[in-house]
Amino acid sequence: MAAKKPKLKIIPLGGLHEIGKNMTAIEYGQDIIVIDCGLAFPEDDMLGIDMVIPDITYLQRNSEKVRGIVLTHGHEDHIGALPYVLKELNVPVFGTLLTIGLLENKLKEHGLMESTKRYVVVPGESIKLGQMKVEFIHTNHSIADAVALAITTPLGLIVHTGDFKIDYTPIGGEVIDLQRFAELGKQGVLLLMSDSTNASRKGFTMSEKSVGLVFDRIFEDTPKNRIMVATFSSNIHRIQQIMDAAAKYKRKVAIVGRSMVNAVKTSIELDYLTVPENTLIDITEIKNYTDDQLVIITTGTQGEPMSALSRIASSEHKQVSVKPEDKIIISASSIPGNEKMISKVINELLKKGADVVYEGIADVHVSGHACREELKLMLALTKPKYFMPVHGEYMHLTSHKEIALIMGIPKENIFLMGNGDVLEISKNGAKVNGTVPAGQVLIDGLGVGDVGNIVLRDRRHLSEDGLMVVVVTMEKESGTILAGPDIISRGFVYVRESEDLMEGARKAVSEALSKCEFKGMTGWTYIKNLIKDALKEYVWQETKRSPMILPIIMEV
Amino acid sequence: MAAKKPKLKIIPLGGLHEIGKNMTAIEYGQDIIVIDCGLAFPEDDMLGIDMVIPDITYLQRNSEKVRGIVLTHGHEDHIGALPYVLKELNVPVFGTLLTIGLLENKLKEHGLMESTKRYVVVPGESIKLGQMKVEFIHTNHSIADAVALAITTPLGLIVHTGDFKIDYTPIGGEVIDLQRFAELGKQGVLLLMSDSTNASRKGFTMSEKSVGLVFDRIFEDTPKNRIMVATFSSNIHRIQQIMDAAAKYKRKVAIVGRSMVNAVKTSIELDYLTVPENTLIDITEIKNYTDDQLVIITTGTQGEPMSALSRIASSEHKQVSVKPEDKIIISASSIPGNEKMISKVINELLKKGADVVYEGIADVHVSGHACREELKLMLALTKPKYFMPVHGEYMHLTSHKEIALIMGIPKENIFLMGNGDVLEISKNGAKVNGTVPAGQVLIDGLGVGDVGNIVLRDRRHLSEDGLMVVVVTMEKESGTILAGPDIISRGFVYVRESEDLMEGARKAVSEALSKCEFKGMTGWTYIKNLIKDALKEYVWQETKRSPMILPIIMEV
Repeated sequence: MAAKKPKLKIIPLGGLHEIGKNMTAIEYGQDIIVIDCGLAFPEDDMLGIDMVIPDITYLQRNSEKVRGIVLTHGHEDHIGALPYVLKELNVPVFGTLLTIGLLENKLKEHGLMESTKRYVVVPGESIKLGQMKVEFIHTNHSIADAVALAITTPLGLIVHTGDFKIDYTPIGGEVIDLQRFAELGKQGVLLLMSDSTNASRKGFTMSEKSVGLVFDRIFEDTPKNRIMVATFSSNIHRIQQIMDAAAKYKRKVAIVGRSMVNAVKTSIELDYLTVPENTLIDITEIKNYTDDQLVIITTGTQGEPMSALSRIASSEHKQVSVKPEDKIIISASSIPGNEKMISKVINELLKKGADVVYEGIADVHVSGHACREELKLMLALTKPKYFMPVHGEYMHLTSHKEIALIMGIPKENIFLMGNGDVLEISKNGAKVNGTVPAGQVLIDGLGVGDVGNIVLRDRRHLSEDGLMVVVVTMEKESGTILAGPDIISRGFVYVRESEDLMEGARKAVSEALSKCEFKGMTGWTYIKNLIKDALKEYVWQETKRSPMILPIIMEV
Repeated sequence: MAAKKPKLKIIPLGGLHEIGKNMTAIEYGQDIIVIDCGLAFPEDDMLGIDMVIPDITYLQRNSEKVRGIVLTHGHEDHIGALPYVLKELNVPVFGTLLTIGLLENKLKEHGLMESTKRYVVVPGESIKLGQMKVEFIHTNHSIADAVALAITTPLGLIVHTGDFKIDYTPIGGEVIDLQRFAELGKQGVLLLMSDSTNASRKGFTMSEKSVGLVFDRIFEDTPKNRIMVATFSSNIHRIQQIMDAAAKYKRKVAIVGRSMVNAVKTSIELDYLTVPENTLIDITEIKNYTDDQLVIITTGTQGEPMSALSRIASSEHKQVSVKPEDKIIISASSIPGNEKMISKVINELLKKGADVVYEGIADVHVSGHACREELKLMLALTKPKYFMPVHGEYMHLTSHKEIALIMGIPKENIFLMGNGDVLEISKNGAKVNGTVPAGQVLIDGLGVGDVGNIVLRDRRHLSEDGLMVVVVTMEKESGTILAGPDIISRGFVYVRESEDLMEGARKAVSEALSKCEFKGMTGWTYIKNLIKDALKEYVWQETKRSPMILPIIMEV
């Protein structure tokens, strides 16, 4: 057999048909490069799950090929799975200074600092990984130090945008490196993989600077009262603007919320955040200042119950309590699914007399992702032969595909893929060819992947109608009942007020058992099913509910 | 003691600080009138709960005073609790023709047709209830036959808007009766209670007719493909516009979804829906028509898993399956909390090749509630002495209060109340004076109010980490272990892959028990706690999870 020329494979392992857990493998011959390694937040029906990470079976099976993981930026949906993945697949990690800085906070928590090889790159720099070369290109996003990747392969150039927007007046940095994208487009781009998050939104995303102007106006209009601003801890540019506004209006800034304190600390150390002189104070010092001298920056924009803002709203925070007339700015938009939690926090703050400014009331937030016109610009600059929309639910990928069609990319050159699908590119063309394992690994406490469908199904069942445990002690040989049936329930009804129902349930089980004894049956499975059916029937008739029923037979 | 002149009491029993379960009592002397009797959908943490209704303890305690329940319109959050409340408090019900028609569908299901006195009123009509008089005033809303109420009391006039918007070009009816509100304002309104749902939204709500124009354009642009439209079953005017567009473009209309079929049937019977000749067909007939001849109207705009649209999307619907190129219009906005379910359905439909039009993509929905400028108009027409914003979360009530302040109502005459608060009005003034029982009654299956905080706490605990049941059979006198400890878990870990963990757990319990036997302890509660603590500690160390632990000791 003649040796075949290797094909280029692009394998999304996460981030398609979903928001989160972004991860893509680029494979050529004996080399695999992995782009990003993010987590996703659990779906509503994943009860008790802390987070979700990508299935890396394919990478484990080809571990000798994996040259490294390159990171586009430091958001959780791009780096959050690394501590778990590195334990299974110890490969070098490459990223910009802030990205690696934020990652190191995680590695310390997981005791992985020693074992993890980390390389800091600067935008404009290239690294060689096997037969491929990765160039890091400066972009704009809602976190500092975000980059796109230009990956040179023997078959051509792949451009992966990472998450991006086009901000002509960014805070603390340059405009996204449009020239470089143009240059690459001129040279010829084989494949563009581009961020689809806002592909359904018309127009352009506003500049981060526009938020600063709104802050300035609010600060000016609020000369006497305390100001609190909630935002994402990783949005360093937003935090910079809050600090600048505070300094301008001669206010001190105190930080609350663990992740906010960490992010600000890391950003100051790495020089991504310039704190105006004499501005930052410790939260314990706020008592030394009057309301008009204070700004508090906090986490909790999504109404997360354990976040600083939620605890402040419910009067459970140790250092900060809401005062009437406090001006509270929620500088974020709601992530789908969090709307009700956010409303709850806003309502609580309003009830305590605070004046709350949120999205819709004033323009106190802009997105970090490119809208339709920006996505067109990216396509126009890079002029790719093939196009793969990434990072988004199916509806976003579809919208991005429409944009690419408008921009003249032929339909057959646009690949709307799913996680695990393999895009194979050769000299002759590109096609989706086969799949590799891909999916969700659920993390619950220390457990990685030990909670699956059966466990989740049981949790859902228990959450709906609770459970009833029926215990009977039986004589091994004869099947004589020595004790019970006793019924214990949890999450079903308030037992003290439902004595008749519980007594009825016990009788229903006893009757079923008496019939079975009569037949001299001692097969435990048979008896268990008998108990289950009798109790289920009785409970459904009485309550139209179906609690989980656990029959337990103790042999003596 | 001299006989005091009775005071007028306004007691909201639901609908304040929440969306849903609207209910208000108006009391003067020996008479109580109840306005509306709605349900609310359960909050996210009310696991397994079907719906929530108001606590009517106050009305039950004063049942001899209750003259009747007057309904403003037929939405669930205004009539949905009636079947439950009427079983406890059998009083006459008053409403317009469609409202009573929709109520009767419910009464039939609950076997309450015989026992419930129902009176149909027409807008403009007045009824006398004890010393008070209730006038029904035509309004615009997202359901036909909605009314506001003008209640004449010995102390003055109360105007309750119900849910309303101002639609200058409504479908199938008149503009809201602005003249009557103006007349009442001229005569003098003591108290205005007005709908706050959209009080945070600027401007005016668009006319229902604007949606029809968008439908027309979409139908015109879709000459060949099948069209499906999802909307709320109670939005009769929306359904009318879909039918009119269908007739214009020579398409037949088929209806799917139980609530949609019922609502359309009732609306046709009562003459609220005019079906163009030869337009309506049965869903079983769609196979006789080509795609360009068909429109399907369906429920499921909120992504409810059991709704027709969800079942169509997941290929589980018996009569309808999605075809590539189907044009599917979701003519509704997402109710907060439902965003993710809706996205899921849209993604599924797109994956099947359908072209889905939803809010944001085109203007295929308008709200049924008045925005800020309309609320100003209502205040300007009625010129009330006192004002109480109703129907909304705290943030909406606050926004409405701001509007009233702008309109010149003095701060001290605006009452931002909570459910159960009593507003007392006398010749001398108005003040909030005391509270009555008010709250949430949870409905789960047949149970009304039998699931409370303890049961819900258990369900939440079970949903997070599942449970472990430990069973030990002991000799009554000596405390000798005759069988066990056996451990059964559900919703905790996948047991077959966690044998070591489960064996470790059994050992931890055995060890704890062996120590206790040594002391000759036979107090069951003590032993149970010992088991609980030992197992909890072991499981937390191994997994960082806290399943519910149920120790069961069987005495023999």
